[in-house]
Amino acid sequence: MTHRNTVLTIATGLLLSSAITAPAMAEEGMWTFDGFPTAQVQQTYGWAPDQAWLDHARQSSVRLTGGCSASFVSDTGLILTNHHCVASCLYDNSTSAADLLEAGFTANRREEEKPCPGQQAEVVTAITDVTGTVQAAYSGKTGEALTRARDAAIAGIEAENCTDRESTRCQVVTLFGGGQYKLYRYRKYSDVRLVWAPEDRAATFGGDPDNFNFPRYSLDASFLRAYDKGQPVKPEAHLQWNPRAPKADEITFVVGNPGSTSRLWTQSQFAFEREVRLPMTVAILSELRGRLISAMEVSEERQREGLDLLSGIENSLKVYIGRTTALHDPAFTGKLATAETELRSRSAGNAAIGDPWADVSKAVESYRALYLPYRFITPQSDLYSYAQSIVIAAKERSKPNAERLPGYTDSALPLVEKQVLDQRPVYPWLEQLQLSWSLSKAREYLGPDDADTRLLLGQDSPEQLAERLVTNSRLGDAAYRRQLWEGGLAAVEASDDPMIQYALRLEQRERDLRQQVNEAYQGPLAAAGAKLSDARFAAYGDALYPDATFTLRISYGRVRGWTERGNEVPIATTLGGTFERATGNAPFDLAPGFAAHREQIDPTVAYDFVTTNDIIGGNSGSPVIDRDGTVIGAAFDGNIHSLGGNYGYDPVLNRTVVVSTAAVQEALETIYPAPALIAELARR
Amino acid sequence: MTHRNTVLTIATGLLLSSAITAPAMAEEGMWTFDGFPTAQVQQTYGWAPDQAWLDHARQSSVRLTGGCSASFVSDTGLILTNHHCVASCLYDNSTSAADLLEAGFTANRREEEKPCPGQQAEVVTAITDVTGTVQAAYSGKTGEALTRARDAAIAGIEAENCTDRESTRCQVVTLFGGGQYKLYRYRKYSDVRLVWAPEDRAATFGGDPDNFNFPRYSLDASFLRAYDKGQPVKPEAHLQWNPRAPKADEITFVVGNPGSTSRLWTQSQFAFEREVRLPMTVAILSELRGRLISAMEVSEERQREGLDLLSGIENSLKVYIGRTTALHDPAFTGKLATAETELRSRSAGNAAIGDPWADVSKAVESYRALYLPYRFITPQSDLYSYAQSIVIAAKERSKPNAERLPGYTDSALPLVEKQVLDQRPVYPWLEQLQLSWSLSKAREYLGPDDADTRLLLGQDSPEQLAERLVTNSRLGDAAYRRQLWEGGLAAVEASDDPMIQYALRLEQRERDLRQQVNEAYQGPLAAAGAKLSDARFAAYGDALYPDATFTLRISYGRVRGWTERGNEVPIATTLGGTFERATGNAPFDLAPGFAAHREQIDPTVAYDFVTTNDIIGGNSGSPVIDRDGTVIGAAFDGNIHSLGGNYGYDPVLNRTVVVSTAAVQEALETIYPAPALIAELARR
Repeated sequence: MTHRNTVLTIATGLLLSSAITAPAMAEEGMWTFDGFPTAQVQQTYGWAPDQAWLDHARQSSVRLTGGCSASFVSDTGLILTNHHCVASCLYDNSTSAADLLEAGFTANRREEEKPCPGQQAEVVTAITDVTGTVQAAYSGKTGEALTRARDAAIAGIEAENCTDRESTRCQVVTLFGGGQYKLYRYRKYSDVRLVWAPEDRAATFGGDPDNFNFPRYSLDASFLRAYDKGQPVKPEAHLQWNPRAPKADEITFVVGNPGSTSRLWTQSQFAFEREVRLPMTVAILSELRGRLISAMEVSEERQREGLDLLSGIENSLKVYIGRTTALHDPAFTGKLATAETELRSRSAGNAAIGDPWADVSKAVESYRALYLPYRFITPQSDLYSYAQSIVIAAKERSKPNAERLPGYTDSALPLVEKQVLDQRPVYPWLEQLQLSWSLSKAREYLGPDDADTRLLLGQDSPEQLAERLVTNSRLGDAAYRRQLWEGGLAAVEASDDPMIQYALRLEQRERDLRQQVNEAYQGPLAAAGAKLSDARFAAYGDALYPDATFTLRISYGRVRGWTERGNEVPIATTLGGTFERATGNAPFDLAPGFAAHREQIDPTVAYDFVTTNDIIGGNSGSPVIDRDGTVIGAAFDGNIHSLGGNYGYDPVLNRTVVVSTAAVQEALETIYPAPALIAELARR
Repeated sequence: MTHRNTVLTIATGLLLSSAITAPAMAEEGMWTFDGFPTAQVQQTYGWAPDQAWLDHARQSSVRLTGGCSASFVSDTGLILTNHHCVASCLYDNSTSAADLLEAGFTANRREEEKPCPGQQAEVVTAITDVTGTVQAAYSGKTGEALTRARDAAIAGIEAENCTDRESTRCQVVTLFGGGQYKLYRYRKYSDVRLVWAPEDRAATFGGDPDNFNFPRYSLDASFLRAYDKGQPVKPEAHLQWNPRAPKADEITFVVGNPGSTSRLWTQSQFAFEREVRLPMTVAILSELRGRLISAMEVSEERQREGLDLLSGIENSLKVYIGRTTALHDPAFTGKLATAETELRSRSAGNAAIGDPWADVSKAVESYRALYLPYRFITPQSDLYSYAQSIVIAAKERSKPNAERLPGYTDSALPLVEKQVLDQRPVYPWLEQLQLSWSLSKAREYLGPDDADTRLLLGQDSPEQLAERLVTNSRLGDAAYRRQLWEGGLAAVEASDDPMIQYALRLEQRERDLRQQVNEAYQGPLAAAGAKLSDARFAAYGDALYPDATFTLRISYGRVRGWTERGNEVPIATTLGGTFERATGNAPFDLAPGFAAHREQIDPTVAYDFVTTNDIIGGNSGSPVIDRDGTVIGAAFDGNIHSLGGNYGYDPVLNRTVVVSTAAVQEALETIYPAPALIAELARR
């Protein structure tokens, strides 16, 4: 649970050379489907997709609730995504006897396709503006009263618009920090199964050292299938599979769900990030990485069991370190400051806007005082996450929908329930490791004499407490989780499971802190966000894109290399290049499938390529679509320059990294043969 | 080797409220003995020590080459220092059968006193100004030519003034960044033995969570003895042992060797620290901490073997994180900036000074480009350090003294030789862990395709290379090290030891990088440093203290608490408080000696106390001396506010933490009985 949703591989944009708040330049922008900048694209490329093209792309695009993007690529529910987006599914379906992550997987028949725990596929079917309703609901309110009124309005809108919760999901999305509220309606498929995945080493060749680097030699692709009532889904639309090499400078569209960006932040928010959140995050995650590396060395089994978490940590760390570098680059931060200064000066004298920058600054100051307890009050572990969800859900379900915490409303509960109840393996050593780490960090940052430290630890040491909670908890058993979930608050409070009791012990303090954060920070931020949004639209017109929100966006760009310290980086690698880069030693050792088929693999086939599309973590698995609307790759990474893209985009250096359909086709034909899949993809 | 000298527990000064470059205010300052601010002390306290008092304190004070401070406390060479300054000696003398670190140690007879590997005691006997000679030697030169001329002049001065290298050591110290060069002459004692140490838990009660915190309950004291030709030394002077409680507001002097401060840095140097060096250091050290924590969990034996390194890492991390916080505090950095602006404005129009700030800025820019390779070209491990010292020494010894690298001149070699040849245990798992960590970090930060990464790794993975080098090296055997040392370059080049061969492989690149750093950074810095120093003396007169250089300094202050979030922190704890703070769980578990003697221990005895003295890492073990010249404690830590003290001192919040002689006396009488020691200390 904990580590699944937070790990989104892709991030973008270290050095930005163009405007940040002003209308987006060149290829910058993660555009909503109801705000596509047709005129701008037409002007730049002499061509732009029409509404039918856009509708088809939207209907073919899939959000994976595990934190990735994807697309339908057949009329029988076949889904293309990244290997790293299905790694958890492979991991959850592995045992020490059969390591699917290492060996790869091919379902030769439908019945062999394997369920992916916690995974759900979602397709946007409608987007509606509900800004007026939401803003009217909180009008005149401030602080926590504002967030409560807003959340109640949202819960109401979602419940009214998706009464069929089996097959639809409604979500009100906050855009421009509160300037717009949009209702996204989804067709959802909660039965997602694994069809094909290459060996882990083929997908992660080069490992952490090559992550966010290019040239790259990674087969980061896999296939899933969506099912409905036990049958493969017939999607409303799908993308035609087009296994060809990319062409230099051709226009490309990336359609997917960028998770989160912070490009519209104010200076005080950047300062908090640079001074407080990033340094602490890098330090504590680095320690977890180290703890895990050594703990995995103990046995082959632990190597397997720890790999999924380790990859996630290393990926996140690289992102956070890249962001730190960006926010320590005076040229980069200078541009962020200039952009704010310009917007302030354009807004001067507009009484309706006032000074939202000062309001944000005040909110951030308040948050500084709350940040440590709020961050550390929730221990990190899958078992604790189960316990916490079960406890909170039991309490929230007994309340009217409009009064519940946002994650536990009628529209949100089905996914929570699925994620809690799906069967997944739990490894006690890994639970203990994460729990003792997070408790010891809480003690370190809060101090041993702090009241929250005492609440978290009592008289125990982190190690003792973690061992006792994990060893004696039954929450690894999905049947027991179901029993508590269905038993409601009475069952939960009667449970003698120590993890449940622990979650009950922490719950009130977590609520209190959340309430304080809403009162002093989130409430003021929502109010200021609406004003900042007004200021932007007044200053720059409506050709603006909102910060990423893990909802469907479209980015346009081109297949194009860049210049690295005077050297031209080519647009693509070839499969043959893999053999030149291999050293024989991890993580540069050839996948066995590659080694075994060296003679058969066509070395000239295009492998990974780069484009100027503007993406970020959450876009992993997004289809890369050509002018004709066919899919020519799956985006899986950004280059190293793109790591500051959270704060701003640089068209000169920022690149999206894509695995080509040509390479996947060659793999399906030669390395990990899947003739049925080839036939399905070839169908028109 | 590697981790011993870098770990200096004490650091000082988070928030500074007074001037930084202007004449020192209140208790600020780590003064040289030839520049004691008598008038200032007289004015503040109505009394100041006279020259006899100062001479006696200097003659009684000891520098420990392991990275600590200490003092003679008997006429038979008894030395008082911190427990954490002898922890490595306890560790080096331990086996899995007899863990002296855990159990503590009392030598009942002289013959039982145990040698401390690598440790040497040094007493300053004379300080001479050699600024003119050194500056004349490099006059007209720049870059690396400057550093070479300077280093040759220094080597010459040191060699001329200490011809007896058995019992004396000469060291030219660079003060004010190159504004002054002073020759320090030492009486040295290279045979230092362990006399008494409490149990580790008594010294480290509260462990990392309580480190840099107060109130504190730590018996961080131990005794060593200096020997000369097999006999206990009769020092020229010693401090009278005075086992009494501290009195509120009484004047205290701390005499010791603060390791390093950066208070005279320019803005560009602070920026480099904040933007580059600190974030990287915290991230990679945090990972090492994590790797070690998990690796130690494998067995009781590893717990023992890894503890010394872990304590060092955790201590350093806390210091670096504290420094990061300080350099991210706008109030703090604002004062640093103001101080620079003031000095610049006072220096404006002085043509002889010019613009050294711009020169430093340019040097720092050049260093940014060299920093990564220069930092990562030297792998971290004790065995590698041995190999590197042996290889470089073999090459340098064949050159004339004036042409050698600074660390390998005639005056420097005896200590290097002692540190290489002293017998110490080496634990292969710990060597491998450090080596694979440092090699993998080199690859991460330099990139897998970097030429230096290829030089470091070849086709190997970090883990493989570390295993091969450590498993096959004989450098853990002191006899083999001696053989290579004495055999000189021929023996070194003929050796088939893989670690020696590896050090030979890296050596030229290390030299090249050092040369580039001297050319572009150290040379310009030395020239600019002299001008900045001139600017300071011209602006503020001569009541200035230089940045710390691990040479003898004296700080004055008072026994005084502070106000923490509205609460008064008392000046001292008592032994009885330990029992109240104990939870029974590590690191808050009672030392067995405390538990066993609970009834006998006088709970009212003063334990640890705080003073306003200005100290930093390297001061650990410094005697705290009262007005009468008697010793009333040993400084062992700073409070949490003091961690920014590297950059500036705050008299309001910054405190030195001291273990009182009263507590040590009670321990010697009641907990870890040592009647002979009590008698020796009581002698007048």
